[in-house]
Amino acid sequence: MTDATDDEFEAYADLGATTADAMEIAETSMDRVHELVPQETLADRIRAKSVHATGDSEFQHLVRFTGTDDSEPVRAGARAVSNERPIVTDITMVQAGITGRGHDCPVRKAIGNGAELAAETGMTRTAAAVLELDREGVYDDAIATIGNAPTAALALADCIEQGTRPAVVVATPVGFVKAAESRERIREVCADHGVPAITNVGRRGGSGLAAGLTNELIHVASDARNGDVVLDE
Amino acid sequence: MTDATDDEFEAYADLGATTADAMEIAETSMDRVHELVPQETLADRIRAKSVHATGDSEFQHLVRFTGTDDSEPVRAGARAVSNERPIVTDITMVQAGITGRGHDCPVRKAIGNGAELAAETGMTRTAAAVLELDREGVYDDAIATIGNAPTAALALADCIEQGTRPAVVVATPVGFVKAAESRERIREVCADHGVPAITNVGRRGGSGLAAGLTNELIHVASDARNGDVVLDE
Repeated sequence: MTDATDDEFEAYADLGATTADAMEIAETSMDRVHELVPQETLADRIRAKSVHATGDSEFQHLVRFTGTDDSEPVRAGARAVSNERPIVTDITMVQAGITGRGHDCPVRKAIGNGAELAAETGMTRTAAAVLELDREGVYDDAIATIGNAPTAALALADCIEQGTRPAVVVATPVGFVKAAESRERIREVCADHGVPAITNVGRRGGSGLAAGLTNELIHVASDARNGDVVLDE
Repeated sequence: MTDATDDEFEAYADLGATTADAMEIAETSMDRVHELVPQETLADRIRAKSVHATGDSEFQHLVRFTGTDDSEPVRAGARAVSNERPIVTDITMVQAGITGRGHDCPVRKAIGNGAELAAETGMTRTAAAVLELDREGVYDDAIATIGNAPTAALALADCIEQGTRPAVVVATPVGFVKAAESRERIREVCADHGVPAITNVGRRGGSGLAAGLTNELIHVASDARNGDVVLDE
């Protein structure tokens, strides 16, 4: 049992821990991560979270930031959280990984929308779902998080090319087919159209990583609210 | 668009793909994985799934099987699926990752149970939840899947030591503190008490991996039902 203060308790609760044992694990765990990742910029917080989420100190080198500087997507994401903009995930599993604490953003998922479009066209359910939500304007100024489906990332890239402007894109689909390519396309399209994005290179990634990185945007917003972080340049 | 037959369609639907594009990705993806992982034993199917879930060909070497032989936990898990035994996950995110197709097992999560115990003792919410469900006899003959919380794995190990007998344990908590140790303890206790287990070594792991490996047990059960796989020795 730890004898943490209320403030400390709140800090560790941000990591998903709400009891004394969990706080101790969360504290020690982030201490270990901070031995491995610099703590200089807001981008470093995302790098650290990637290490925390994957259990792999090398993952920090696989994260990519699209923006005017590496920290821009983090500021943009945290601002969107502060503005209570929707967090829109591709699948249920990513949605389930988004913390309920420290924000008032609606959290919704794409999957489940656009079933008719998928059936008609043969495109994946998540790609059709992204196009359907985009038709409703859901992605503009939203936090668009894609953890699983490469085709959802490709569909979102098409939407951005056609004028959709998410506040930030977090895209980490995993796998051997189209995953790395879908993230590369997100980076290209986002760079062309001034949409901040957080992605990774390589085949790895996944739902847990996407949820973890999005949760870190929420934590940065909380820290900004508390005056521990300044989001304006 | 592929011109897959109904049978092919069903096979790819097992991978979570239900439209033509998704089928094509799923097909090509598993083809790539099968270039990297042997396809000789049922254990190899779990190794292949670990590569598929992590996007990392090296992950196959990190998977560990506790049982009379490497394939025993796979047979035990598939039999439990066929017997419609409950799949019990630690957290919501893992539950959300379990496929709804190809089985009639109830899928439930530990988290949300045992809140009073956690508050009283300071143990983690998931550890308290495991102890609470164990008190109700939920884990006996169940598929116990732990993807996130080391303390949940440690609590489950305690339960097994005290007489609980899951049909199979799938444990892949990720992280820098207690994660590897919790899996090591699962392996020791399961070996001592004849409980089949699928775990991994190292710091990596997580919810997506745990859900993927559990889904593979479901797919093996489907194949056994179709006569493509024999579960009896």
